[in-house]
Amino acid sequence: MAVDFDLDGAIRKVPDFPHEGILFYDITSILMNPEAFSHCIDRMVELYKDTEIKSVAAIDARGFLFAAPFADRLGIPIILVRKKGKLPGETLTKSFDLEYGQDQIQIQKTDVKPGENILIVDDLVATGGTLEAAADLIKMAGGVVTDIFSVVGLPFLPYKKVLGEYKVTTLIEYDSE
Amino acid sequence: MAVDFDLDGAIRKVPDFPHEGILFYDITSILMNPEAFSHCIDRMVELYKDTEIKSVAAIDARGFLFAAPFADRLGIPIILVRKKGKLPGETLTKSFDLEYGQDQIQIQKTDVKPGENILIVDDLVATGGTLEAAADLIKMAGGVVTDIFSVVGLPFLPYKKVLGEYKVTTLIEYDSE
Repeated sequence: MAVDFDLDGAIRKVPDFPHEGILFYDITSILMNPEAFSHCIDRMVELYKDTEIKSVAAIDARGFLFAAPFADRLGIPIILVRKKGKLPGETLTKSFDLEYGQDQIQIQKTDVKPGENILIVDDLVATGGTLEAAADLIKMAGGVVTDIFSVVGLPFLPYKKVLGEYKVTTLIEYDSE
Repeated sequence: MAVDFDLDGAIRKVPDFPHEGILFYDITSILMNPEAFSHCIDRMVELYKDTEIKSVAAIDARGFLFAAPFADRLGIPIILVRKKGKLPGETLTKSFDLEYGQDQIQIQKTDVKPGENILIVDDLVATGGTLEAAADLIKMAGGVVTDIFSVVGLPFLPYKKVLGEYKVTTLIEYDSE
């Protein structure tokens, strides 16, 4: 198993996107590289296959790309965490702060089985705001969140503090902009 | 191989979503059902594993959920087709008509290798507008589109006419609202 795979080399860094002064860690370069993508899903499977995780919550939209193959390999359900207005069932809604203003995400109430262990998956964790709101939603629906997975982590942003009550695992961390 | 799997039974129908009078075919009920989800990905693999398809173009956002495990199983690249402003690289943009107004989607130019056969994947095809625009983008970048796959098809909407030059394959069709 290629745990020493050069994942950093597979992540394109794009300066000034989406705003000037931001260095964007572009996971589309992982998607275009089947060896890199397979490495990420292999690592996810290794990390969680022997745990109590019973389903995976996928964050709209790039989280879907890693959560779906992971769920396919393990044969577990996928719970979508989506922007408001996208899910047709009875939903639970959570607001969270963005750099400017607020956003709202939702899950479908019936997707969460009370007491069940759920892993939350996204592609990149920075402030942790979306993931914290997703964890709150799952808990509101009666689920148990112990673990959060993200391919990339930016620990110079406050996610470690915001998500302090969860075990957050990333495959690669970038220490500063 | 469960080709006779009851996929219809796995798709929840939600009346009046997102608007009154619309019957919404909800693929989140497939995602919550590992047997149904696995059936869909199995079928995709069967359909395309022995073809000239070299990569898969995934439509934002629910298309990601089917395209990513398919690409993981076949070891092929994933090209994202996203709403405008989400992709960091040099992009190509295409406008298309919605029921009210217009929308724009993009791909990254470098994701498409000229002359390469690309399969486009979405969860549901109705008017065909998004998929037509996605196919146009891939052709603008030099790629070849022969096949389009969608889990659900609504042939009472004009997709068969709009996408007439492509081979469109669905796993299930619903004949009327």
